Amino acid sequence: MVVKEYVTYNQVHKLCQESAPRILSDFQPELIIAIGGGGYVPARILRSFLKQPGSPNIPIQAIGLSLYEQLPSKHSSGSNTPGEVEVPGTKVTRTQWLDLTSLGEMENLVGKKILIVDEVDDTRTTLEYAVKELEKDVEAARKKLGYEGAKTEFSIFVLHNKNKEKKGHLPQDMWNENRYRAARTVEDVWICYPWEATDIDAHDEFARKQGGA
Amino acid sequence: MVVKEYVTYNQVHKLCQESAPRILSDFQPELIIAIGGGGYVPARILRSFLKQPGSPNIPIQAIGLSLYEQLPSKHSSGSNTPGEVEVPGTKVTRTQWLDLTSLGEMENLVGKKILIVDEVDDTRTTLEYAVKELEKDVEAARKKLGYEGAKTEFSIFVLHNKNKEKKGHLPQDMWNENRYRAARTVEDVWICYPWEATDIDAHDEFARKQGGA
Repeated sequence: MVVKEYVTYNQVHKLCQESAPRILSDFQPELIIAIGGGGYVPARILRSFLKQPGSPNIPIQAIGLSLYEQLPSKHSSGSNTPGEVEVPGTKVTRTQWLDLTSLGEMENLVGKKILIVDEVDDTRTTLEYAVKELEKDVEAARKKLGYEGAKTEFSIFVLHNKNKEKKGHLPQDMWNENRYRAARTVEDVWICYPWEATDIDAHDEFARKQGGA
Repeated sequence: MVVKEYVTYNQVHKLCQESAPRILSDFQPELIIAIGGGGYVPARILRSFLKQPGSPNIPIQAIGLSLYEQLPSKHSSGSNTPGEVEVPGTKVTRTQWLDLTSLGEMENLVGKKILIVDEVDDTRTTLEYAVKELEKDVEAARKKLGYEGAKTEFSIFVLHNKNKEKKGHLPQDMWNENRYRAARTVEDVWICYPWEATDIDAHDEFARKQGGA
């Protein structure tokens, strides 16, 4: 039996809110990269809490990475889940990448502190892909521009990290320098995010019964 | 005195949910373009409700358009608003545009039904900019590809349309063909979206007292 954990919007909001001060003190990001679709909501909320008085909002760029493949519906009765079941895939597909033109022809990537946001760290495959590919872009930009010294730093924020064996791996210095942050570490459960709920009131009620809301 | 209207996450969720069937029956979008940051949350929710059994998710591309400029904080006490006040600007700045490479070298724009999603239609300046610029891209793609017949159709979905004089204008055929949809039309009030709330419980309580939650 798959254990489900229901997370409400307000819980997501609070996870972002409580994480923001440490992200600001440890890392001071200059650009947020939201991995869509799951990263859209936490990235937008986080932006509110990362905003400093007198400074403009930290810009968000969205990238679209798709790892999961759709299987036909199982029509399990009584469940508050979408009509289709998602299973982890092994291949990452880009549905959107950075818009380097609006970023100022890549130079804004070099020497910057960049916060990558997603909702969940499951197998880590998507995050590994994102970091590796972004590092390639930065290296290309650095060579093109002839910048030598400026180091680009990536950090990661996810709402939930699943405590399980990971297929993907992140650079060691990201761990050494404390640039990975999960608001919560959970067991290998099925996390039901509110934006996928077909009945949001029932969803909230499930979350409340679990004692989390 | 500025009248504020508080909107909860669950209300946003339900506005998307109730609008989805008509969007599907009237328009059947093949691509969602989320105008960030405000469009991120409704676009992600809407995607859940636009998904058809047996079909993959409708892809989302995010664009970043910034119209509002930041003013210093007024520190109005007792308010559940961010520390800074936003005033409408007149200039639209792109912070991200479409990633045409991942879209399949632009051809996926031509002849497609594209749904543009934002949270609010205030002065309509941002929406006018988005539609005009996207139409330019489509026209360029059409010429490049030599496609003649295939018509690209844009439609718009916003959570709230403010009933006020608009500075921006949308193409007449969008009105004629019913391709503009606002889940709610409201007076010219200050809409407080939940992702900007510094105290989400107080925010929900304000919304509840207004009788909307």
